[in-house]
Amino acid sequence: MAQNVAQKLIGDHLLSGSTTPGEEIALSIDQTLTQDATGTMVMLELEALGLDQVRTETSVQYVDHNLLQTDEKNPEDHLFLQSAAQRYGIWFSRAGNGVSHPVHQGHFGRPGLTMVGADSHTCAAGALGMLAVGVGGLEVAMAMAGEPLYVSMPEVWGVKLTGELPDWVSAKDVILEMLRRHGVTGGSGRIIEYYGDGLAGLTAMDRHVIANMGAELGATTSVFPADEAVRSYLAERGREEDFTEILADEGAGYDVEDHIDLSQLEPLIALPSSPGKVKPVREVAGEEVYQVVLGSSANPGLRDFAVVAEAMAGRRVHERVSFDVNPTSREMYADLAREGWLFDLIAAGARVHQSGCLGCIGMGQAPAVGRSSLRTMPRNFPGRSGTDEDSVWLCSPETAAAAALTGEITDPRDLDMEYPQVQMPQEYTISRDLLTAPLPPEQAREVELVKGSNIYSLPEFDPIPDELDLPILLKVGDDVSTDEIMPAGSRVLPYRSNIPKISEFVFVQVDDTYSSRAAETEGGHAVVGGTNYGQGSSREHAVVAPRYLGLKVVVAKSIARIHWQNLANFGVLALEFADEADYEAIEQGEVLSLRGLHEALHASHEVGARIGDRDVTLKHRLSERQVEMVLAGGRIAHHARSTASTG
Amino acid sequence: MAQNVAQKLIGDHLLSGSTTPGEEIALSIDQTLTQDATGTMVMLELEALGLDQVRTETSVQYVDHNLLQTDEKNPEDHLFLQSAAQRYGIWFSRAGNGVSHPVHQGHFGRPGLTMVGADSHTCAAGALGMLAVGVGGLEVAMAMAGEPLYVSMPEVWGVKLTGELPDWVSAKDVILEMLRRHGVTGGSGRIIEYYGDGLAGLTAMDRHVIANMGAELGATTSVFPADEAVRSYLAERGREEDFTEILADEGAGYDVEDHIDLSQLEPLIALPSSPGKVKPVREVAGEEVYQVVLGSSANPGLRDFAVVAEAMAGRRVHERVSFDVNPTSREMYADLAREGWLFDLIAAGARVHQSGCLGCIGMGQAPAVGRSSLRTMPRNFPGRSGTDEDSVWLCSPETAAAAALTGEITDPRDLDMEYPQVQMPQEYTISRDLLTAPLPPEQAREVELVKGSNIYSLPEFDPIPDELDLPILLKVGDDVSTDEIMPAGSRVLPYRSNIPKISEFVFVQVDDTYSSRAAETEGGHAVVGGTNYGQGSSREHAVVAPRYLGLKVVVAKSIARIHWQNLANFGVLALEFADEADYEAIEQGEVLSLRGLHEALHASHEVGARIGDRDVTLKHRLSERQVEMVLAGGRIAHHARSTASTG
Repeated sequence: MAQNVAQKLIGDHLLSGSTTPGEEIALSIDQTLTQDATGTMVMLELEALGLDQVRTETSVQYVDHNLLQTDEKNPEDHLFLQSAAQRYGIWFSRAGNGVSHPVHQGHFGRPGLTMVGADSHTCAAGALGMLAVGVGGLEVAMAMAGEPLYVSMPEVWGVKLTGELPDWVSAKDVILEMLRRHGVTGGSGRIIEYYGDGLAGLTAMDRHVIANMGAELGATTSVFPADEAVRSYLAERGREEDFTEILADEGAGYDVEDHIDLSQLEPLIALPSSPGKVKPVREVAGEEVYQVVLGSSANPGLRDFAVVAEAMAGRRVHERVSFDVNPTSREMYADLAREGWLFDLIAAGARVHQSGCLGCIGMGQAPAVGRSSLRTMPRNFPGRSGTDEDSVWLCSPETAAAAALTGEITDPRDLDMEYPQVQMPQEYTISRDLLTAPLPPEQAREVELVKGSNIYSLPEFDPIPDELDLPILLKVGDDVSTDEIMPAGSRVLPYRSNIPKISEFVFVQVDDTYSSRAAETEGGHAVVGGTNYGQGSSREHAVVAPRYLGLKVVVAKSIARIHWQNLANFGVLALEFADEADYEAIEQGEVLSLRGLHEALHASHEVGARIGDRDVTLKHRLSERQVEMVLAGGRIAHHARSTASTG
Repeated sequence: MAQNVAQKLIGDHLLSGSTTPGEEIALSIDQTLTQDATGTMVMLELEALGLDQVRTETSVQYVDHNLLQTDEKNPEDHLFLQSAAQRYGIWFSRAGNGVSHPVHQGHFGRPGLTMVGADSHTCAAGALGMLAVGVGGLEVAMAMAGEPLYVSMPEVWGVKLTGELPDWVSAKDVILEMLRRHGVTGGSGRIIEYYGDGLAGLTAMDRHVIANMGAELGATTSVFPADEAVRSYLAERGREEDFTEILADEGAGYDVEDHIDLSQLEPLIALPSSPGKVKPVREVAGEEVYQVVLGSSANPGLRDFAVVAEAMAGRRVHERVSFDVNPTSREMYADLAREGWLFDLIAAGARVHQSGCLGCIGMGQAPAVGRSSLRTMPRNFPGRSGTDEDSVWLCSPETAAAAALTGEITDPRDLDMEYPQVQMPQEYTISRDLLTAPLPPEQAREVELVKGSNIYSLPEFDPIPDELDLPILLKVGDDVSTDEIMPAGSRVLPYRSNIPKISEFVFVQVDDTYSSRAAETEGGHAVVGGTNYGQGSSREHAVVAPRYLGLKVVVAKSIARIHWQNLANFGVLALEFADEADYEAIEQGEVLSLRGLHEALHASHEVGARIGDRDVTLKHRLSERQVEMVLAGGRIAHHARSTASTG
């Protein structure tokens, strides 16, 4: 049967299960990616699992998130990660080497491989024809331990691209168009596969932009074919031998179909405060802008900076605007310097920062309250910038450059200039100087973990009892993101290896009494959410920290994929309303009662419950394997138990 | 009579008083400098004084300290400062334009002028033959309002330089040699004037290094002659018309004499945690290094970065080391990019940050506990880096480069390479694009101050009563710096315009119960210190915040110059022990009683007091004018009272 690219990648790694959408499948995993915000937890999980050496082909630990170092916590975490990488046989990418996704693509990305990453934008690697899935840290730790990745088989969504992008329109506008059409849940339960003649005009780095922000559609991942554009990318990096062609078979079909005529696209922008609120730039033109930020995994390529540099060369940033530039990788930073573009940017008035995620994850670069900030980044959830009442917009580098020059939101086609034709360099800077290779196992075993005073071992979690009476401590609305459940930013992220401390910040932007009320409630509690609960970042702290505070059950209209998996992994029961009308009736403070829970979970995907004085029917999506894991108190407890029972 | 340079500068600006050392003199002030950490307070002071337009020739507000923007406070302060600069007729240097001192020297520095700055390193401008004094913010506000600067006439300390610096030894080693010889109080009550044949080998930027760190010696300021080196510096910047030659007269003498043979110097380093703990690098070679940081006003010149870039070109940073580079100004950053040095630094593994003070003031770049960090910065007081138990060393760019390459403290002469002969560019980047000129007064009056939610007006302070019974809430040892009295860093600095909030952090590293105990003590309290109390930064928050908490009297063995002035300005009585033995007998919690205080202060420079059950004699250094100011509750209250009585 004719296969599409996604089916080929899955078929090559399928260990068990059927590829009917919705069925649980197990996939073998070739590579893993962790970054420093999630990685400390992963390393503590490896320690808890008693792992000796990772069993993946390649695992890489990046330091790109927590670069601000306002006290000893971040640098000590970096030392801990460096020691753990050495101990467990993991590549280590040092602070300053750049954002994980573009660096990984450049050094380790290879068509045909699978990867899991403890970062929701891991899917960016789909640009090279990989099957790369962002998951919680524990999934990554299990993959490092040689376990398969369990996922529900997604639908494959074929998006046919035709035509060529007009001047002043670039890859970012393609993914913004997808978000304009389908919103932040449009990709849920799906792999997005791009195909068609329009691909010819998109480089591997352009595809990285599009694949990366598939995360914002809620997709399991995005894939592109491994075609000539991928071969030429790998060749430019001296890695042509890593190329394998992977194309959809003639006549291959898709579960869902869509089409974008690239020639019809125009500059688009996501309004505050959701990547799904997309409009044409011209419709919001004129809004005053106080900050413009270039960078992040959503526009990481040299071209994305060079086009801005050429548009701004000899001009200068508007008096109102702070123009912040975050070169995505050290290699790219060096090329910007060598090719003269960095000079143009600085001369135009840019504040050029070190390589890393920086403002994208709220580590610095926070805007003033209500003052518009335009960013080439992937996310603008409320408060993610570090400022509670922020006004953050997402756009292409071209639209960012226009705003930097005029001080207001401006359709770049209205700039009185030719579209810059960027001449890419003949040769790129390629260097592994800040990438440390794994030690040989015998040396690795001699390495001791360097634990700073802020690094705590993981708490242990109890099994879930058969009968539960849980007060509903919090009821929230639709599209609550993990940024709202567990804020990141410079105030909170330094505590990511200190669960007791970080739990004080759970839901702090939504209800700052939650964590103290939860801590005072003996016997646990429940939280009720709307649709798409837990969208956004993969951070498992958004489960571990409320779990530490006693969260036992989440009931929502629907739960975002990675967060749902994280809940299961840490022994929190995730339920959804059979009838969404039951959501409306719930008042915070009511009690959720469950009886005969264990048998009910095993018996069917429906669970009867009582909320207040009403009987309601709730659903669960757990496989038999997952039911046992959740009831055991999560994956680590379950792993320990199965090891013990077989040992 | 033959005059030295300092005497000429003072003579040209003397409004009243006699130039006998120790006598109070009044000087007219041509220029002022403020930065964002101290500037918000200065602008609030201008508001409290009801000023319309500044009366100085040139006043400049810089944004260089609080660049991290972890939430809305810092960007909103920048907007406030921008609006205040426009309102009061002040130049505004935007975030990203660079560190105040080198930028000011490049654009506004002019031989023969006087300047006060709300930054202790204002003295750097002495490199051009200016008389530039770091003072508290209120002194600067008064200068902007057209008032003279009142200081005790310092001694003039002539330091004769002869010979030429050997390879691998540079200007930083000259000032480290001064600190090695004389320690952190050696310059107290003195102006340091450099002269002699050795000057010929020191550029204006080299002199900036030496003048800048005169602050670390506790000197009132440092001055260099305005000679050919200054002319050539101004000519390179297209400002030769601003040059005036100012040389010491033939046969001019000095109150104190010293001599340094430059050819005999070797690489020096200040050990943790004082700029005065200086040793030859070779004596501490071998110590493991985890971080190396280039930047700050203490080594701000293009040469200081270029020499490192050339030493590191084609090599790479040691695996253990985070190598952080903070280009001091946007112009210098652009030149580093254009000349290829930035490429060399990045390729060697540098984390290159935006232009600004950054790690120098604890805004990021904190090291891990106990892990050595080598910096080209001016200060390493305990905790200033952001890490409580830090291990920060101060050295030249050459010594920093050696440590970055080897991963341990290394005498750069032991590197197996030729000393790089840096070829300076033919042309420098010169740009005022991020420097906004003052508005014409009629437009300025239309400007409204943009106050973010974190900007509070100044509290008003009461007069000092005639009888006082004050518990001694804290007794501290020698050399307590303003970093210990009022920490800076990313956690505290954002509250610099919010006195109630920032006062919670007073003395937090010394005794974290101080602020709560002070707040609970009605009727005020006293603090007892050792020698050199209040050394370091000029920040007046180190007075305003404890004053807000009820501090009324400080008694110490000796008090550092700027802090002493700040105490007087905000109505805190600063007293010193006539017999230092009385210090030893004091126990924290004892009561200090003063009777008939007003008459005693007016009558003589000695005040009788009772501490516990002992009679002690205390001294004060207040002039008659200052006695009235302190008793009135400080300079603003006194100004209001005199305006009212004459109005």
